[in-house]
Amino acid sequence: DFLHALEEVKPLFGAAEEELGQRVRGGIIHFSPFINDILEEARLFINQVRKGSTPVLSVALHGPPGSGKTALAAKMAMDSEFPFIKLVSPEDMVGFSEMQKVQQLDKIFRDAYKSTLSIIVIDNIELLVDWVPIGPRFSNSVLVALKVLLAKPPPKDRRLLIFATTTERSVLTQLDLFSRFDADIAVPNVNSQPELAQVLQQSGAFSDRDQQRAIGEIQEITGSSDVGVGIKKILTAIETAKEDQDVPGRFARVMSSAISANRSSFT
Amino acid sequence: DFLHALEEVKPLFGAAEEELGQRVRGGIIHFSPFINDILEEARLFINQVRKGSTPVLSVALHGPPGSGKTALAAKMAMDSEFPFIKLVSPEDMVGFSEMQKVQQLDKIFRDAYKSTLSIIVIDNIELLVDWVPIGPRFSNSVLVALKVLLAKPPPKDRRLLIFATTTERSVLTQLDLFSRFDADIAVPNVNSQPELAQVLQQSGAFSDRDQQRAIGEIQEITGSSDVGVGIKKILTAIETAKEDQDVPGRFARVMSSAISANRSSFT
Amino acid sequence: DFLHALEEVKPLFGAAEEELGQRVRGGIIHFSPFINDILEEARLFINQVRKGSTPVLSVALHGPPGSGKTALAAKMAMDSEFPFIKLVSPEDMVGFSEMQKVQQLDKIFRDAYKSTLSIIVIDNIELLVDWVPIGPRFSNSVLVALKVLLAKPPPKDRRLLIFATTTERSVLTQLDLFSRFDADIAVPNVNSQPELAQVLQQSGAFSDRDQQRAIGEIQEITGSSDVGVGIKKILTAIETAKEDQDVPGRFARVMSSAISANRSSFT
Amino acid sequence: DFLHALEEVKPLFGAAEEELGQRVRGGIIHFSPFINDILEEARLFINQVRKGSTPVLSVALHGPPGSGKTALAAKMAMDSEFPFIKLVSPEDMVGFSEMQKVQQLDKIFRDAYKSTLSIIVIDNIELLVDWVPIGPRFSNSVLVALKVLLAKPPPKDRRLLIFATTTERSVLTQLDLFSRFDADIAVPNVNSQPELAQVLQQSGAFSDRDQQRAIGEIQEITGSSDVGVGIKKILTAIETAKEDQDVPGRFARVMSSAISANRSSFT
Amino acid sequence: DFLHALEEVKPLFGAAEEELGQRVRGGIIHFSPFINDILEEARLFINQVRKGSTPVLSVALHGPPGSGKTALAAKMAMDSEFPFIKLVSPEDMVGFSEMQKVQQLDKIFRDAYKSTLSIIVIDNIELLVDWVPIGPRFSNSVLVALKVLLAKPPPKDRRLLIFATTTERSVLTQLDLFSRFDADIAVPNVNSQPELAQVLQQSGAFSDRDQQRAIGEIQEITGSSDVGVGIKKILTAIETAKEDQDVPGRFARVMSSAISANRSSFT
Amino acid sequence: DFLHALEEVKPLFGAAEEELGQRVRGGIIHFSPFINDILEEARLFINQVRKGSTPVLSVALHGPPGSGKTALAAKMAMDSEFPFIKLVSPEDMVGFSEMQKVQQLDKIFRDAYKSTLSIIVIDNIELLVDWVPIGPRFSNSVLVALKVLLAKPPPKDRRLLIFATTTERSVLTQLDLFSRFDADIAVPNVNSQPELAQVLQQSGAFSDRDQQRAIGEIQEITGSSDVGVGIKKILTAIETAKEDQDVPGRFARVMSSAISANRSSFT
Ligand SMILES: Nc1ncnc2c1ncn2[C@@H]1O[C@H](COP(=O)(O)OP(=O)(O)OP(=O)(O)O)[C@@H](O)[C@H]1O
Ligand SMILES: Nc1ncnc2c1ncn2[C@@H]1O[C@H](COP(=O)(O)OP(=O)(O)OP(=O)(O)O)[C@@H](O)[C@H]1O
Ligand SMILES: Nc1ncnc2c1ncn2[C@@H]1O[C@H](COP(=O)(O)OP(=O)(O)OP(=O)(O)O)[C@@H](O)[C@H]1O
Ligand SMILES: Nc1ncnc2c1ncn2[C@@H]1O[C@H](COP(=O)(O)OP(=O)(O)OP(=O)(O)O)[C@@H](O)[C@H]1O
Ligand SMILES: Nc1ncnc2c1ncn2[C@@H]1O[C@H](COP(=O)(O)OP(=O)(O)OP(=O)(O)O)[C@@H](O)[C@H]1O
Ligand SMILES: Nc1ncnc2c1ncn2[C@@H]1O[C@H](COP(=O)(O)OP(=O)(O)OP(=O)(O)O)[C@@H](O)[C@H]1O
Ligand SMILES: [Mg+2]
Ligand SMILES: [Mg+2]
Ligand SMILES: [Mg+2]
Ligand SMILES: [Mg+2]
Ligand SMILES: [Mg+2]
Ligand SMILES: [Mg+2]
Repeated sequence: DFLHALEEVKPLFGAAEEELGQRVRGGIIHFSPFINDILEEARLFINQVRKGSTPVLSVALHGPPGSGKTALAAKMAMDSEFPFIKLVSPEDMVGFSEMQKVQQLDKIFRDAYKSTLSIIVIDNIELLVDWVPIGPRFSNSVLVALKVLLAKPPPKDRRLLIFATTTERSVLTQLDLFSRFDADIAVPNVNSQPELAQVLQQSGAFSDRDQQRAIGEIQEITGSSDVGVGIKKILTAIETAKEDQDVPGRFARVMSSAISANRSSFT
Repeated sequence: DFLHALEEVKPLFGAAEEELGQRVRGGIIHFSPFINDILEEARLFINQVRKGSTPVLSVALHGPPGSGKTALAAKMAMDSEFPFIKLVSPEDMVGFSEMQKVQQLDKIFRDAYKSTLSIIVIDNIELLVDWVPIGPRFSNSVLVALKVLLAKPPPKDRRLLIFATTTERSVLTQLDLFSRFDADIAVPNVNSQPELAQVLQQSGAFSDRDQQRAIGEIQEITGSSDVGVGIKKILTAIETAKEDQDVPGRFARVMSSAISANRSSFT
Repeated sequence: DFLHALEEVKPLFGAAEEELGQRVRGGIIHFSPFINDILEEARLFINQVRKGSTPVLSVALHGPPGSGKTALAAKMAMDSEFPFIKLVSPEDMVGFSEMQKVQQLDKIFRDAYKSTLSIIVIDNIELLVDWVPIGPRFSNSVLVALKVLLAKPPPKDRRLLIFATTTERSVLTQLDLFSRFDADIAVPNVNSQPELAQVLQQSGAFSDRDQQRAIGEIQEITGSSDVGVGIKKILTAIETAKEDQDVPGRFARVMSSAISANRSSFT
Repeated sequence: DFLHALEEVKPLFGAAEEELGQRVRGGIIHFSPFINDILEEARLFINQVRKGSTPVLSVALHGPPGSGKTALAAKMAMDSEFPFIKLVSPEDMVGFSEMQKVQQLDKIFRDAYKSTLSIIVIDNIELLVDWVPIGPRFSNSVLVALKVLLAKPPPKDRRLLIFATTTERSVLTQLDLFSRFDADIAVPNVNSQPELAQVLQQSGAFSDRDQQRAIGEIQEITGSSDVGVGIKKILTAIETAKEDQDVPGRFARVMSSAISANRSSFT
Repeated sequence: DFLHALEEVKPLFGAAEEELGQRVRGGIIHFSPFINDILEEARLFINQVRKGSTPVLSVALHGPPGSGKTALAAKMAMDSEFPFIKLVSPEDMVGFSEMQKVQQLDKIFRDAYKSTLSIIVIDNIELLVDWVPIGPRFSNSVLVALKVLLAKPPPKDRRLLIFATTTERSVLTQLDLFSRFDADIAVPNVNSQPELAQVLQQSGAFSDRDQQRAIGEIQEITGSSDVGVGIKKILTAIETAKEDQDVPGRFARVMSSAISANRSSFT
Repeated sequence: DFLHALEEVKPLFGAAEEELGQRVRGGIIHFSPFINDILEEARLFINQVRKGSTPVLSVALHGPPGSGKTALAAKMAMDSEFPFIKLVSPEDMVGFSEMQKVQQLDKIFRDAYKSTLSIIVIDNIELLVDWVPIGPRFSNSVLVALKVLLAKPPPKDRRLLIFATTTERSVLTQLDLFSRFDADIAVPNVNSQPELAQVLQQSGAFSDRDQQRAIGEIQEITGSSDVGVGIKKILTAIETAKEDQDVPGRFARVMSSAISANRSSFT
C-alpha cells in the first residue's frame, strides 16, 4: 500500500517540477543580500520538518506586488528535494465553485499526507479566498478551510511544510489567517538605485552609460532616489524599452510612472 | 495535434475579423494628434510580445463614454495580424450565469494559448463584471477570474497580448484590478472647437458656414468654448441633425445638452 | 431564410398592434401644445433610423406616474409603421426568474434583428429591473443586460429604435442607465387650470358650469391654482365622480386629495 | 369556451363565499357612523367598475391591528354580488417559495380575467410580501409582482376591482406600493367611551351597571377617557372576562393593558 | 371521517405526553406564590377556549433563561386534558431547511385542526426563527409563517390554544411578533433569599445549617442579598456541589458566579 | 437492541482513542499548578454526570491560541473512561455544506444517546460555525443547531457530558452561545519566566546556561519579564531553534517576536 501511494505521488511531483520551473524562468537575481537571507531561512524550516519533530509547519511569504514571492517560494520548494511538492494556484481553480475549491484543497492535503515529506505551495492566498477590497468580499468557506487545514495534524510519521504567498498581509491579519502561520518571511521590492543598477547590469540590455542615464532620468522625473518597484515590473519594463529607439529614455519613463503609481497607492 | 489546433483557431479569427470590423465601421477620424500617438504606442506593445521575451502583456484602454475605446482597440488588434484574435464582449454573454461567464473566459484564454501569438480584446470590462454603482455590486467570481487570468503564465512558446477597454478606471482601481495591467492608454474626448471642426469637416454634412454657425451657437448656449464630448455621441448627433430642417441649429442644441449633461455628471 | 424570418416577424407585429392599441384606448387628449411637440420629436428619431445611417438609437420617455408615457410610446410606435414592433412589459414577465427575464430580453432583441426596421418599446423599465427604493434593491442581471443590449450593434443592414418609459429618471441615473440612452423626452403632468379644463371638456361628463365649479372648488380646497396630476388619474377621477350624485363636488374632492398627495411626496 | 370559463369560476366563488363568511363571523357592529360611510364609499367603487368605464380599480383598506379591515373587505366583496370573488390570504401560502407566491398571484389574476366582473381581496398585503421591520426585509419578487398586477390592463370587456388590507400604510408607502392604489379607505379603532359602550351593549355580556363600572375603571387605570383599541381585541377581551368571577373588573384590566401597550408602541 | 381523524390524533397525544413529561421531570417547586398565579391564569385561557366563543387564542410565556418557562407550559398543557397536545421544539427540527420548518409548522397546525380542542406548545420561539443577535439574523420565512399561523382562523367547530415560550421578549417585539399574541405571562427568576431557601429545602441536599451558610456566603461574595437566577441553573448547581467535599461552599461559589454573570449581562 | 447499540458504539470509541491520543502527543507539561486544578475541576463534572442526577452537562474550555485547550480536553475525555467518546473537529468537516455539518452534529449527538455515559468534545467551536471577524460572518444554521443540541434533554437513562474548546470567548458571548454552557474553564498561556523555564527544562534541548541566556535575551529584546505565549508555539520554537547553530539565540528571537505579536494584537 505504501508502494502504491508512492506511485500516486511521483507523477504529481513530475508535473509540479515543470510548473514550479515556469515560475523561476526569469531567474533569481541577487540584487540585494536579503535574497540570500531569505533562502537561508527557508532552508532552516525545511530541515526542521525533515528532522521530524514538527509534524506540520507553515510559512507565509508576504511582500508588494511583483516582488518575487512566487519565484522564491518555487525555488525553495524545488531546492528541498522533498518527494512530494504541489503548487496550489488560483489559476488552476478558475471557474470552480467555493465548494469545489475547498474539496480540491482538501484533496491536495490528503495527497500530501501520502508522502513522508511534503511541501505545499499556496500561491496568492488572497485570490484563492476570492478577496475583493470592496465590501469587503471573500469566500468564507475557502478561508475557513485554509484555517482548518493549516492546523490539521498529519497522520503518524508524515511531515508537511506549507509555503503561502500573499501581497495582502494586512488582509490576512484582518481575516485572522496571518497569525495561524508558524512563521513569516518578508520579500522586499527593489528599493535603492544600487539595487536597480544591479538588475540592469544583469539584464544585459544597457550599456554602462545608458544605465547611468536611465537611473539619472528616473531621479529627475520622480524627484527622489527611492525606487520601490517589484523586480517583475522592472524586468517587463526593460523588455518594453528594448522596442523603443530610445531604450534608456523609455525605461526611465515607464519606471517613473510605476514609482509614482506605487507612491500614490500607499498614501 | 498542432495542425488540428491551428484549424480550430482559424475560423475563430475569421469570425473575429468581421466582429472587429463592425466596431470601426464609423472609421477612425484623426481629430487630434493624440489618435496617432495612441496607435503608435500600441504597436510598441505588439512588437514586444511578438519578439517573445514577454510571454504575457496586458494593456488597459480607459476613457470617457463614447470616446472611441472599442474602435481603437479593434483597430490595434486587426493591424497586428496576429494569427489569433478574439473580442470578448459582454454582449455575447447576456443571460450567462457568473459561472458560465468565468468558464467562457477560461475557455477563451485556453483557446488563445493554442496559437503562438494571440490577442484578446476584453470590451467594457466593468460590464463584464456586472458593475453597478449602487451598493456597489459586481460579480466577484468574474472579477477574481479576470485577475487570475491576467497574471497566468502562458504555456511554453506561447505569447499573449490583452487589450481591455473601460469607462471606469477608478472603479477598476477600487476593485484592485487596474494595477494588474502592465500598461494603460488614455483615450480622450473631442475637447476643443478645432477638434470638433475637424470632425464636422469629415462628416460632409456641414457647409463651412453651417459648421461655424453650429460651433458658435454651442459656445453661446453653453457659455464656454470647451467641448468634452465623445466622438460617438457627436457622430450620432450629426445624423439626428440631418433629419431636421435646421441642421446646424439642431446639432448645436443636441451638442449643448450633451455638454451640459457631461459637466453636471462630473461636478 | 429571409422569407422565413419575415413570417416569424409578422404574427409578432399582429399581436403587438392589439397590445399597443390597448394602451391608447383612453385616446390622446391634446390638453397642451407639448403633446404635439413630443410626437414631432419622436418622428425625427424614427426618420433618422429609417434612413439607415444610425444602426441603433434609444430614447427614454420619462415623467410622473400616470402622465401618459406608455400611451405616447405606443402611439409613436404604431405611427412609425415599422415592420417589427414589440412591447416589452413587466406584466408579461410576472413570475420569471432574473435569468428568464434576461433571456426573454435577449430573445426579443434577436427577434428584432430579423427585421430591417424594428421598434422595441420597453415599458416601466424600473419595474423590469425589480427596483424597490428600500435597500435599494434591483435585479443586477437585468440591469446589466439592458445596458449591454442598448449598446449592442445590430447585424449589417438592420436598424433598431428603442423607446423606454420610466417614472424614475433619477433612479436610472443612479443606476448609470439613463446616460446610455441616445436621447430623452420629458412627458408632463396636467399642470394648469386651462389644461385641466381642456381635459374635462373632452370628457363630456361636465356641463360648462359644473366644470367651473369643480375647478373652483379644487382651488379653494388646495389653496392654489396649480394642478400637477397625471392625465390617467384625472380620467379615473372623472369616472368615480360620475357615480356620485354630486359629480363636480366628488371630482373636486378626489382631485384635491390627489394634488395634496403629490405635493407631500415631492417635499 | 366562455361557458367553460364560467364553470371554472363558479366553484371558486362557492368556496370564496364560505371563506369570506368566516371573516365576518363576529358580525359588523355599527359602533360609529364611520362604519356606514366606509361601506357606502365601497359601493361607489363597485358601481364604477360595474358600469365598465374603468377596467381596473384598486382600493387599499388601512388601519390599526384588529380594527376590522378584513371583516369589512369581506363584507364589501360579498355585498357586490360580482360573479367572481377571490380572497387572497397569506394563510393559504404558508410554505410557498417566493416564486410560488408570485405564480399563485398571477394565476388568481388570470382566473379573475375569465369573468366579466371580478373582485380580488388581498388580505394583509404586508405579510404577503414577507415584510419584517428588522433589516427591513421583504420579498422583492412578490412586491414587484403586486405592483405590476395592480396596473395590468384586463382583457377587453373584463373589469376587475381589487381590495387590499394592511396595518402598514407607511410601509407600503416606503415600498412605493401605496400610491399605486387608485383609492384608499381608512378603518378606525374603537376610539371613544361611547363607541366602546356601543360594543359592550351589543355583546350582551354586561349589565348596564357592569358596563359603566368597566368603563369607569378603565379611565381610572389609564388616566384618560381615550380608548384606541381595535374591535377584534375588544371582542376577545369580553370572552376572557366572561371566564372570570369578576367580569367587568377583568375586562377593565385586560383593556387597560391593551390601551397602554398601544400607546407605548406609538410614542 | 371524524373517527378517522380522532385515530390520527390519539397517538400524537400519546407521544406528546411522554415528551411533555420529560420537561417537568425536575418537578414544579412552589418557591413563590407567583407560580400558583401563573398556573391559575393559564386555566382561565384554557376554559375560554373550551367554552368555544374564541376559536383561537395565543399566549406567550416569557422570562429569563432557565426560569422554568418550558416546564410550566408543559404542565399547563398536560393539565388541560385537551384531546390534542403537541410540543413544537427547535430540537426536533435540527437540520431542517427554512422551508421544511415552515412546512412542519403548517402540518402541525393542520393536525391540530383535526381535533375539536387542541393545544400547541411552541418552545423557544426565538430559536425556531434562528434568531442570532449579530446582524441580526433570523429566518424570515419561519417568522412570517408563525405570524400568519397565529392569526389563522380554525375551521368551523375547532378551537386552538397556543402557548409559546421565549427568553427574548424584546426580540419578539422588534420582530413585530410579540403583539400578535392575545395574552402574555411573565415567568420570574428565583429572586430573593427566602425563595432560594425554599428551593434548597426541597432539594434535600442541605442541612439547615449548610443552607444558611451557603446563602450567607453568596451574600458575602456578591455583596448583595439579591439572587436573580433561574431555577434550572440552581438545580444544576446543587448537583455539582454534591460532588464536592464542601457542598455549601462549592454551591455558594457556583451561584455567585452565576449571579455576577447575570448582572454584567444586564448592564 | 441494546447490545447492537453497544456494538455500534465500541468501534467509534476505538477510533476516538487514536484521534484523541494524537492531540496529546506533545504530552502535558505541568508548567504551573493551574494545570492540575483544571484537570481536577474536569473530574468533578465527570463524576456529576456519572452519578446520573444531571442528564446533560456542557463545559467550555477557553483560552488564547495554542494554550493547550485541545490537548487538555482530549486528556480529560480519555481519563473519564466513559464508554462513548467522540471528538468533533472542523477538520473532519472541510468541504461540508452548512446542512451537512448540522446533520453530522445531529448524528453525533444521536450516536451519543445510544450509550449510557457519553462525552462529546467539540473542538474549535468558532471554526465549526465558520466564524470570520470581517462582517462578521458565521454559519447561522450551525450556530443554532449547537444552541439547540446543547440544551436538548437526552432520552431516559442516558447521560451526556460536552466539552467544547474555543479561542474566541467574546465571540461566543456575542453569538449568545457562551452563556448556554453550564460551566467554563479558562486555559492560561505560559505567562512568567519561571513557567517558561519549567517548559525549557522538560524539553531537554537547553543546558542550564543556555536556558538562562535565552530567557535573559528575551527580557532584553522585549523589555519586560512577561511572557504570555501559548505552550504550543513555545514547543515549535524550540524545534526551530534546534536547527540553528545558536540555539538559545534563535529561540530568544523567535519567542520575542511571538511576544510582540501577541501584545500588539491585544492593544
Ligand atoms: N531576486 C529575485 N526574487 C524573485 N524573483 C526574481 C528575482 N530576480 C528575478 N526574479 C524574477 O522576477 C519575477 C518575479 O515574479 P513573481 O511572479 O515571482 O513575483 P510575485 O511577487 O509572485 O508577483 P505577484 O505579486 O504578482 O504574485 C520572476 O520572473 C523571477 O524569475
Ligand atoms: N478617432 C477615433 N477614435 C475612435 N473612434 C472613432 C474615431 N473617429 C471616429 N470614430 C468612430 O467613433 C465611434 C466610437 O465608438 P466606440 O464604441 O468605439 O466608443 P467607446 O469609447 O468604445 O464607447 P463606449 O464608452 O460606449 O464603450 C466608432 O463608430 C468609431 O468608428
Ligand atoms: N395627451 C395624452 N397623453 C397620454 N395619454 C393620454 C393623453 N390623453 C389621454 N391619455 C390617456 O391617459 C392614459 C395615460 O395612461 P398611461 O398608462 O399611458 O400613463 P403612464 O404615464 O404610462 O402611467 P404609469 O406611470 O402608471 O406607467 C391612457 O389611458 C391614455 O389613453
Ligand atoms: N364594525 C366592525 N368592523 C369590522 N369588524 C367588526 C365590526 N364589528 C365587529 N367586527 C368583528 O371584529 C372582528 C374584526 O377582525 P378583523 O380580522 O376583520 O380585523 P383586522 O383589522 O383585519 O385585523 P388584523 O389587523 O389582525 O388583520 C371580526 O370578527 C368582525 O366580525
Ligand atoms: N416553579 C418551577 N417552575 C418551573 N420549573 C421548575 C419549577 N420548579 C422546578 N422546576 C424545574 O426547573 C427546570 C426549569 O427548566 P426549564 O427548561 O423549564 O426552564 P426554561 O425557562 O424553559 O429554560 P430555557 O430558558 O433554557 O428554555 C425544570 O427541570 C423544572 O422541572
Ligand atoms: N500543560 C499543557 N497543557 C496543554 N498542552 C500541553 C501542555 N503541555 C504540553 N502541551 C502540548 O502543547 C500542545 C498544545 O496544543 P493544543 O493544540 O492543545 O493547543 P490549543 O490551545 O488547542 O491550540 P489552538 O488554539 O490552536 O486550538 C500539545 O501538543 C500538547 O501536547
Ligand atoms: Mg506571485
Ligand atoms: Mg466601447
Ligand atoms: Mg406606463
Ligand atoms: Mg385582517
Ligand atoms: Mg425552555
Ligand atoms: Mg485547539
